[in-house]
Amino acid sequence: SQPYSLLILPGDGIGPEVMAEVRKVIDWFQANRGMRFDVSEDLVGGAAYDRHGTPLADATMAKAQQVDAVLLGAVGGPAYDSLDFSVKPERGLLRLRKEMDLFANLRPAQCFDALADFSSLKREVVAGLDILIVRELTSGVYFGEPRGIHADDNNPDNEGGRVGINTQRYTSGEIRRVARAAFDLARKRSNRVCSMEKANVMESGILWREEVQWVHDNEYPDVELTHMYADNGAMQLVRRPSQFDVIVTDNLFGDILSDAAAMLTGSLGMLPSASLGAPMANGRPKAMYEPVHGSAPDIAGQGKANPIACILSFAMALRYSLGEGAAADELERAVEKVLADGVRTADLMGPEGGTPVSTAQMGDHIVAAL
Amino acid sequence: SQPYSLLILPGDGIGPEVMAEVRKVIDWFQANRGMRFDVSEDLVGGAAYDRHGTPLADATMAKAQQVDAVLLGAVGGPAYDSLDFSVKPERGLLRLRKEMDLFANLRPAQCFDALADFSSLKREVVAGLDILIVRELTSGVYFGEPRGIHADDNNPDNEGGRVGINTQRYTSGEIRRVARAAFDLARKRSNRVCSMEKANVMESGILWREEVQWVHDNEYPDVELTHMYADNGAMQLVRRPSQFDVIVTDNLFGDILSDAAAMLTGSLGMLPSASLGAPMANGRPKAMYEPVHGSAPDIAGQGKANPIACILSFAMALRYSLGEGAAADELERAVEKVLADGVRTADLMGPEGGTPVSTAQMGDHIVAAL
Ligand SMILES: CC(C)[C@H](C(=O)O)[C@@H](O)C(=O)O
Ligand SMILES: CC(C)[C@H](C(=O)O)[C@@H](O)C(=O)O
Repeated sequence: SQPYSLLILPGDGIGPEVMAEVRKVIDWFQANRGMRFDVSEDLVGGAAYDRHGTPLADATMAKAQQVDAVLLGAVGGPAYDSLDFSVKPERGLLRLRKEMDLFANLRPAQCFDALADFSSLKREVVAGLDILIVRELTSGVYFGEPRGIHADDNNPDNEGGRVGINTQRYTSGEIRRVARAAFDLARKRSNRVCSMEKANVMESGILWREEVQWVHDNEYPDVELTHMYADNGAMQLVRRPSQFDVIVTDNLFGDILSDAAAMLTGSLGMLPSASLGAPMANGRPKAMYEPVHGSAPDIAGQGKANPIACILSFAMALRYSLGEGAAADELERAVEKVLADGVRTADLMGPEGGTPVSTAQMGDHIVAAL
Repeated sequence: SQPYSLLILPGDGIGPEVMAEVRKVIDWFQANRGMRFDVSEDLVGGAAYDRHGTPLADATMAKAQQVDAVLLGAVGGPAYDSLDFSVKPERGLLRLRKEMDLFANLRPAQCFDALADFSSLKREVVAGLDILIVRELTSGVYFGEPRGIHADDNNPDNEGGRVGINTQRYTSGEIRRVARAAFDLARKRSNRVCSMEKANVMESGILWREEVQWVHDNEYPDVELTHMYADNGAMQLVRRPSQFDVIVTDNLFGDILSDAAAMLTGSLGMLPSASLGAPMANGRPKAMYEPVHGSAPDIAGQGKANPIACILSFAMALRYSLGEGAAADELERAVEKVLADGVRTADLMGPEGGTPVSTAQMGDHIVAAL
């Protein structure tokens, strides 16, 4: 059979460093589990801007459309802060999401037992935590038109004379498809979905609530569905996160709520994500995998970055794109073992101590534990 | 001199119960501190809808415009869930905010030492916490046009055939005035402001960032200003909240972030808010004060509600609307003392125990401590 095709986009900042550790893992599976990979690498974000004047070249976009999975590191950094909006590194990421139609962004917030004391929350609040946030990723205010900054000179009440506009826009179809993704995932977990919006102040939130309810009633009556306002959701995530199983929400609320949830687990350096689109001819979804953390320019190139988020993102690729669920489990268990052994990158170093390791050493430990 | 004029709008659910305790506090200040109050009471939210078919009658709105301070309890409840959007109880609240032009919503997140163990966060993370979130309250996606749910029947790609739209819209003038409010408040505190938006994906966020920076550079160069993306803000609030002094953000982000921050302090039942508008003839702002918590219909009428958030909101009224800063301090100290004595409503009852009291008893204890 065909080798698995991967497109690696290391990006900026710590992206290349953490991705180098994923390479080791890929090599290990190739050498020891009879998998074959066809890996290509390309530029994205600031790195692509430096070379091509755009954060994502058309040729890269075309390649991304054809592979089994895209693995992305991180984009952006202060060197690009003054760039025009249209060529910002983030635009590379957003273009990939939009053109590959990656509508379902899966962000697990799992607390590894070995790190339960590392969270700012109490151990009893986060121990055993296992939430999955499903964030809509191709619509909403991120992409809605009209948008922009305009002159508003003739308005005497507007000191400064400008106006900034963005549009939150959802179709019923966009809501239904991400709802289905959430319900499908819930069936393989604890069978509970909580949908979050602001239906009390936004009509797009009313539509969200109604369409999620429609999908439930017509197609997933066996799954428990609740609705919560997003502000209350933020609060409940901090108060008693274990009440949740799957959370489904829109692009902007998902961005904020998943970052809040990320912190429950102690370190952003631990958290993977998968962005899934419609099924391709082989039945598997178009897909991109990336750590939740950013490019962390302040620690780039120092061997301090934690590669686990990126490695666990590859585990999600094994599971969702390559049909290698057993290998995904194996990789996740290796990460768990290394953590239980007290191996710690700088971000995981708490008062309880541990064995301090570099980015590369963490990768080596995980490979050794496989 | 004139008595202080107050309009009390108890609203729905636990609103009337907690407001009854504020009445006791008002009576105490009247009897013991030589203040005179002219108090009127009216309906808002579901209660107003039941009587008038609208969540805020015009006559109530007119009264609110004329008093020194409006004190609001809470609005809404499941009895009103099926109402049309335009007559939902929340609309009463939003109309008050908009027509009184209450653009600066102050939400302190303070952790009382006696309750530091009650938070889901570790004591060392929240002890001594004292953040002030300044949320823009009269613009943004809450009020932007166009908005609504529309038919999208002719779009074959839109299963369900509807589209929901909201508009995020900010003028430079709207941003500048709330930024000034935040900088003024920071000067009386630790002199630091952190502004939060999503300038990396929203043009309205770019305008937000630029205008806050402009106000800083031109008018408040002495205040330390930082900018943070709102998703990172949510994360940092959970990770290390003590890094913040004043946070300024827009209406929607403020809604979510202040609720997350609220939970840091252990109980929503503790948290007051002030919503301030432009100065009136007497130099004081138009103002409304309300607890951050909602109408909590599940516990309404059972004497379980915590009146402290509403009482501390009245303390903010003393400070910001009545020029009675010393009385505000006195009231806050009384609350602190009662908590230190272990007096606890149900929501504050943790494993460490305490003296369980009803809503009315909590009010009595606070008055006794004055
Ligand atoms: C970098 C940025 C555009 C992005 C987003 O807002 O979606 C990031 O925060 C994320 O969550 O992946
Ligand atoms: C009740 C609701 C309309 C309101 C809001 O979203 O502003 C509430 O959540 C708040 O924060 O005061």
